[in-house]
Amino acid sequence: MNNFFFKLKTSENKARRGELQTAHGAIQTPAFMPVGTAATVKAVKISDVKKSGAEIILGNTYHLMLRPGADLIEQLGGLHKFSGWDGPILTDSGGFQVMSLSKIRKISDEGVEFSSHLDGSKFFLTPEKSIEIQHKLGSDITMIFDECVEFPASYEQAQDAMRRSILWAERSKSAFQKRDGYGIFGIMQGSTFSDLREISSKKLIEIGFDGYAVGGLAVGEGQEEMFKVLDYSVDFLPENKPRYLMGVGKPSDIVGAVARGIDMFDCVIPTRSGRTGQAFTMNGAINIRNAKYRDDAKPLDEKCACYACQNHSRAYLHHLVKANEILGSMLLSEHNIFHYQDLMKEIRKNIEEKKFTNFVKTFFQKDAPEEILVE
Amino acid sequence: MNNFFFKLKTSENKARRGELQTAHGAIQTPAFMPVGTAATVKAVKISDVKKSGAEIILGNTYHLMLRPGADLIEQLGGLHKFSGWDGPILTDSGGFQVMSLSKIRKISDEGVEFSSHLDGSKFFLTPEKSIEIQHKLGSDITMIFDECVEFPASYEQAQDAMRRSILWAERSKSAFQKRDGYGIFGIMQGSTFSDLREISSKKLIEIGFDGYAVGGLAVGEGQEEMFKVLDYSVDFLPENKPRYLMGVGKPSDIVGAVARGIDMFDCVIPTRSGRTGQAFTMNGAINIRNAKYRDDAKPLDEKCACYACQNHSRAYLHHLVKANEILGSMLLSEHNIFHYQDLMKEIRKNIEEKKFTNFVKTFFQKDAPEEILVE
Repeated sequence: MNNFFFKLKTSENKARRGELQTAHGAIQTPAFMPVGTAATVKAVKISDVKKSGAEIILGNTYHLMLRPGADLIEQLGGLHKFSGWDGPILTDSGGFQVMSLSKIRKISDEGVEFSSHLDGSKFFLTPEKSIEIQHKLGSDITMIFDECVEFPASYEQAQDAMRRSILWAERSKSAFQKRDGYGIFGIMQGSTFSDLREISSKKLIEIGFDGYAVGGLAVGEGQEEMFKVLDYSVDFLPENKPRYLMGVGKPSDIVGAVARGIDMFDCVIPTRSGRTGQAFTMNGAINIRNAKYRDDAKPLDEKCACYACQNHSRAYLHHLVKANEILGSMLLSEHNIFHYQDLMKEIRKNIEEKKFTNFVKTFFQKDAPEEILVE
Repeated sequence: MNNFFFKLKTSENKARRGELQTAHGAIQTPAFMPVGTAATVKAVKISDVKKSGAEIILGNTYHLMLRPGADLIEQLGGLHKFSGWDGPILTDSGGFQVMSLSKIRKISDEGVEFSSHLDGSKFFLTPEKSIEIQHKLGSDITMIFDECVEFPASYEQAQDAMRRSILWAERSKSAFQKRDGYGIFGIMQGSTFSDLREISSKKLIEIGFDGYAVGGLAVGEGQEEMFKVLDYSVDFLPENKPRYLMGVGKPSDIVGAVARGIDMFDCVIPTRSGRTGQAFTMNGAINIRNAKYRDDAKPLDEKCACYACQNHSRAYLHHLVKANEILGSMLLSEHNIFHYQDLMKEIRKNIEEKKFTNFVKTFFQKDAPEEILVE
């Protein structure tokens, strides 16, 4: 019995329409995973995340190991029970957050010694430790522990991090406890260097994973450079496994990446931008703080089924955000979570109907300049 | 036709069980009104306020006149439409907030000149202006504009504020535009002086109002003193009109005030305490930040029907609050709103069944010391 598998349903050029089966249910791809960093999708009830149509959420090993701790979550029945989310969960390995959030004390082939960004206390994270934590959390999709370099990186830096990430990929795979319905994904590194991306992919495929992530992007290189890397990198990956672009992105990033063969995404943009007054609509993003919405009786997006669009006006949302009311963050975050799922539905439908190439063309024509408010 | 009336259903000693009919529906009393200061019950969706069983909410003239402005709310269809609340709304007159929040420039029999706490801009508020704003908001229950003295107040201060409040009560009544289903309440002043309370009540009754509020309490005098004032003040008010104790209070304040003949309450405690990690239960209040809840798999309150109690553990709520997650504020605020409505249901049921005297006795025996965390 194998209850963790990927099935390609159809495709249009490089864009793929698939389904990923896991222990906690199936995920239709291309899929967007709302980010539940600290066991909560920020400012949104988990029942509303479900209502949005999201089928999988992401949890953060780094944050959860620091607070409340993996042992406690295991003792309380795992991350699903703890957070109230009964669908599939993917956890990242902590590799990226160790680099971006903590103060690194020492990095070696053995692992990373770092100080918590919360209270400065010391931790030592290794591939084995990261995989063990993800096991305790009960993650449906475990990510290997990797080293993610900053952008821009020199060839030597990128090469060294890629080499170490392959060592860690082997150790992550060995440490992973196989259970039916649970899988582990490799993470390709290599920054913006195509030969490193190719070597990284080949080594990962030799080790053998249930899915492959493109790591080291969305770190400041910009959309054009990111698309360039995807143009060649995705071809290094096997057809029959899901491909996950980590930490991406704006709607146009997602549409462009699907066109380049990516199946899965995660990003804090929908919730983070919701907390700063930005709302995504099918006609581009808007900043609800803008004075022109002060007396606008229309909903954010007339076609959206979210609570805010069904019950409140732009004028009300404008007021809430201007008054720093928590309800403003709540309603905009939930709306954006819905919008991202609606976007994924549109993408999937267009691939199914072999209209995706045209969808992409139209999308990039109407893409509103305000969309780039949040990075 | 008169669609604004109060009907006394039954009573037990001084405690009353009644019903207040308004343009937007009926309110079962004793009733607790969640506070929607800036057109939102903080951190709670209005649909969840409805689900809690609340039948009426309170809006603040002072806050809404400053932001977003009464004219804008009127233009957008009134406070009901603007906030999404379709039940009755009571608005306070701004009198209390002008004293407690703004910087007063000048107070005279004509009105109050003050600076906004938001940006320092100058406003002049009079009884006529306050009533006009409340009319624009579309309030079911308008409150007269009054002067509320601090505690402690000298006899002379209390007497002068009471005298001015009676002048303003007359002007408020004259300015009030009668519409079927809409009413105006007078506010008794007089601080802790029984003769002033008596004079204030008599004058208000002469002017004639649809209900009477006890003002100038819950300003730091403490529960014992407050109950002492209620013991004699409530007797000055007519039997056939609703009695509203403004800005009260903790659960024990409410139980004690109902026993002294009060029918209506409002207070920010359920939401404010929810934002600081305090949760009310039928066994007293708890501070969810307390380390003992770290691994507590039980819900906040097993008998509560709120979303948090139906879906999450104390351990999860403890984690959210410790991590400063917005969801923590959301879930605890909503729970407390539910708890207050459950308390009111218990109170109403016990009066109906003539068991309220015993309920009060039991309640004050079990009242947990932690309840006074938030003042």
